[in-house]
Amino acid sequence: MQNTITPAEAAEFLRSRDQFLILTHLRPDGDTTGCAAGLCRALRQAGKAAYVLFNPETTTLFTPYLEGLLAPEGFEPGTVVSVDIAARSLFPENARVYLDRVDLAIDHHPSQEFFARKTCLDAGRAACGELVYDIARALGPVTPEQAVALYVAIATDCGCFAYGNTTAATHRTAAALIDAGIPLAILNKFHFRTKSFRRLKLESKIIDGMELFEEGTVAVAAVTLEMMASLGATSRDTEDIANLVGQLEGVKTGVTLREMEGGRCKLSVRTDPTDLDAGRVCALLGGGGHAAAAGAAVEGSVEQVKAAVLAAIRQVKGR
Amino acid sequence: MQNTITPAEAAEFLRSRDQFLILTHLRPDGDTTGCAAGLCRALRQAGKAAYVLFNPETTTLFTPYLEGLLAPEGFEPGTVVSVDIAARSLFPENARVYLDRVDLAIDHHPSQEFFARKTCLDAGRAACGELVYDIARALGPVTPEQAVALYVAIATDCGCFAYGNTTAATHRTAAALIDAGIPLAILNKFHFRTKSFRRLKLESKIIDGMELFEEGTVAVAAVTLEMMASLGATSRDTEDIANLVGQLEGVKTGVTLREMEGGRCKLSVRTDPTDLDAGRVCALLGGGGHAAAAGAAVEGSVEQVKAAVLAAIRQVKGR
Repeated sequence: MQNTITPAEAAEFLRSRDQFLILTHLRPDGDTTGCAAGLCRALRQAGKAAYVLFNPETTTLFTPYLEGLLAPEGFEPGTVVSVDIAARSLFPENARVYLDRVDLAIDHHPSQEFFARKTCLDAGRAACGELVYDIARALGPVTPEQAVALYVAIATDCGCFAYGNTTAATHRTAAALIDAGIPLAILNKFHFRTKSFRRLKLESKIIDGMELFEEGTVAVAAVTLEMMASLGATSRDTEDIANLVGQLEGVKTGVTLREMEGGRCKLSVRTDPTDLDAGRVCALLGGGGHAAAAGAAVEGSVEQVKAAVLAAIRQVKGR
Repeated sequence: MQNTITPAEAAEFLRSRDQFLILTHLRPDGDTTGCAAGLCRALRQAGKAAYVLFNPETTTLFTPYLEGLLAPEGFEPGTVVSVDIAARSLFPENARVYLDRVDLAIDHHPSQEFFARKTCLDAGRAACGELVYDIARALGPVTPEQAVALYVAIATDCGCFAYGNTTAATHRTAAALIDAGIPLAILNKFHFRTKSFRRLKLESKIIDGMELFEEGTVAVAAVTLEMMASLGATSRDTEDIANLVGQLEGVKTGVTLREMEGGRCKLSVRTDPTDLDAGRVCALLGGGGHAAAAGAAVEGSVEQVKAAVLAAIRQVKGR
């Protein structure tokens, strides 16, 4: 068992250091981006120099939270912190130079690889944002700007409190962030109750093309390059699309294949974790994640990757 | 200004009475049903005889929570309590005999008509379930069975914490209910992350037929009897359907018309309350509700009611 530190110990460590660079993960989501923004602001408020490393894949859903926080070219960090990064393979290209010099990793993934000198890990948290909130609070009063970023981190990672990872602690942290003074209705409307025409049409196409396996308990859907092109859709329109097919009544495992350029597919598996461990399925395909939500990037066409993931599911189920 | 009592005073009053009959509203939702079930169980735990009046419109989404709680035929109540009923017009047919003898109304609608002897009202609460939780807690420890019913009441009324009515208090109540020992992941999966094939197809048809008005800020969608019949859909498949069209980017007001038998339409209006007061729009059409969410039942065809609601919106907007 690897040695981990508590949020209070992480705050103590951060207080002893300076010149921070914060790293986010490949295909950045609300949790990694919100954590980076919230932690950066908390460190600055504590009198530190702190920046977030530019992540070229950040979508316009989340870029506003990073305004004014990105590291200038040539910034030489004194301390490197990663947020929500579970594995070495999840470092963006421009962050790989820091692979062996991360001072503190803050994470909530059970698949954490312990690449950093110190690791603040709690796999019982719905979002890494819950841990960063505890750290920010230990560093000083949580300002509305910090609270906005951390609310986005937490709420996006638990599907606005609907996913199975949500706990009483998740709700209590949300309540504290709301009390800090965030525009809650606007944030929820923007992130959870607004869909583009393209997104609505994409969902309709995905549902149309969905296939059922294993007596209707496994649904597999594909988002092809052709579908994306015909709708003029971007990665912003596919945010959290992996949870769509798992919604169908009777489905316990929802698999979403996203066809990528270069003959690869990004695979997302969402399961009822009492029925199937999504992390084990994705580990068989070179990926990883949580028991209820995991992913992998797999070489091959949509049909090939579909066959591979169905085989992996049967293997984990012992069939 | 009408006189209202606090949850603590309501609990005190309930403790002094017995032989309870609890009433729910027309077209019962999760809030009215969950409040009735939670309050009934809390009263029984406090040693009282308590029942919920059968509501013929309760869908199978919510009937399980009422198991063992329905009043036997011929039950003569000593005390009548209504939960989440704002107006006399919202009493189901079989509850109208109690119209003038409601002892306590518990409600969170600003349009409350004060039909009861005592009224426990807080229009700042996202759900009536938040008030019933405060009352249940004052009556004794909240059991897991009470907590399940009250969580369903609260979570369904705030769109699983995504709607604009959600507050820090909503999250804190949810955290307390989770601590009481509820199967949170199962409840959320059932109510917020499960859709029937019929529902998914209905959503697709609704989006296809949606029309935009007022420079794209008002979306109007209809659920016709023909659509329902062609899909074999039931009222269970239309639960919370009123929030669908308001999701479209740029739309500030989402209007959903549900064609009913007998030449009437049920109208639901969802708005950004800083842009338009949905309650005022629906009041012009004989209905009522909250600033962000209101409804009415209007005589006429889909086309006639559509014209009427667009006229009402323009009138409230002062055009």
